[in-house]
Amino acid sequence: MATIALTGVLADRDTWTADHCSMAAALGVVGKRATFLLLREAAYGATRFDEFVRRAQLSEAVVATRLRELTDEGLLERVPYREEGARTRQGYELTEKGRELLVVIVALMRWGDRWVAPDGGRVDLHHTGCGGRVEARLQCEHDHDVEPGDLELAVRRR
Amino acid sequence: MATIALTGVLADRDTWTADHCSMAAALGVVGKRATFLLLREAAYGATRFDEFVRRAQLSEAVVATRLRELTDEGLLERVPYREEGARTRQGYELTEKGRELLVVIVALMRWGDRWVAPDGGRVDLHHTGCGGRVEARLQCEHDHDVEPGDLELAVRRR
Repeated sequence: MATIALTGVLADRDTWTADHCSMAAALGVVGKRATFLLLREAAYGATRFDEFVRRAQLSEAVVATRLRELTDEGLLERVPYREEGARTRQGYELTEKGRELLVVIVALMRWGDRWVAPDGGRVDLHHTGCGGRVEARLQCEHDHDVEPGDLELAVRRR
Repeated sequence: MATIALTGVLADRDTWTADHCSMAAALGVVGKRATFLLLREAAYGATRFDEFVRRAQLSEAVVATRLRELTDEGLLERVPYREEGARTRQGYELTEKGRELLVVIVALMRWGDRWVAPDGGRVDLHHTGCGGRVEARLQCEHDHDVEPGDLELAVRRR
């Protein structure tokens, strides 16, 4: 049984192609491991090139390439900064487009905690204020929790 | 300002390494684009090798390698099937470990709908029964919606 029920004209999966799949489109932008490590570090407060290199433990060449891609794609924006006595340099900060990937990052963290990390993960994300652990959940627009078996795929209503 | 507030011993990001990051561990398992396309098709009901090749539009070599990885990692399990007059063959179905990645898949789809797909995406996921659109949301264990700016990272309490 399919986890996701295909409905309407989508019912026969062999009659349509996923040429316009938004998940595939998203992976075209953030499909690389190094990209996620850099977005994680941006979310943890890195702004300077050397911070990204050191904290994500990636080579300068990889960081330079990926930061340029992330900036070109609009997930990071360049923000000038200047240290005492030095020339002005470019730092990087998350844009709204980049920040909205946090739900993907948190979902990957939680899945890794449960299924991959030998010790269940070393760090937790908490909700500021109430202190509750944060996770990524499937919910519908009517605020119902959605189980993996309760999903239907349909052509978008416009 | 950091999107995620680093707390306690984590406050100075340069004093700790992310060696045990569960997100990085998760990407070690599902860090490839082809992997996500195959998981999408498994969620859409593909079970046979030829279905994965045709529907994910990947080469047989790539599908064979990735299906083996996904099976070795326990995201898919082999399920024998037999068509009339043919020998028994191996199909593939999502395990619980694989199904729990649906929240990542949905989060990527929704982000792609909003930020990458030129037309906002062609398909929608609905909640069976109520019909509401499904999305991935950040929430805490006390059921509060969590904004990207309301996250704190802390060493896990045990």
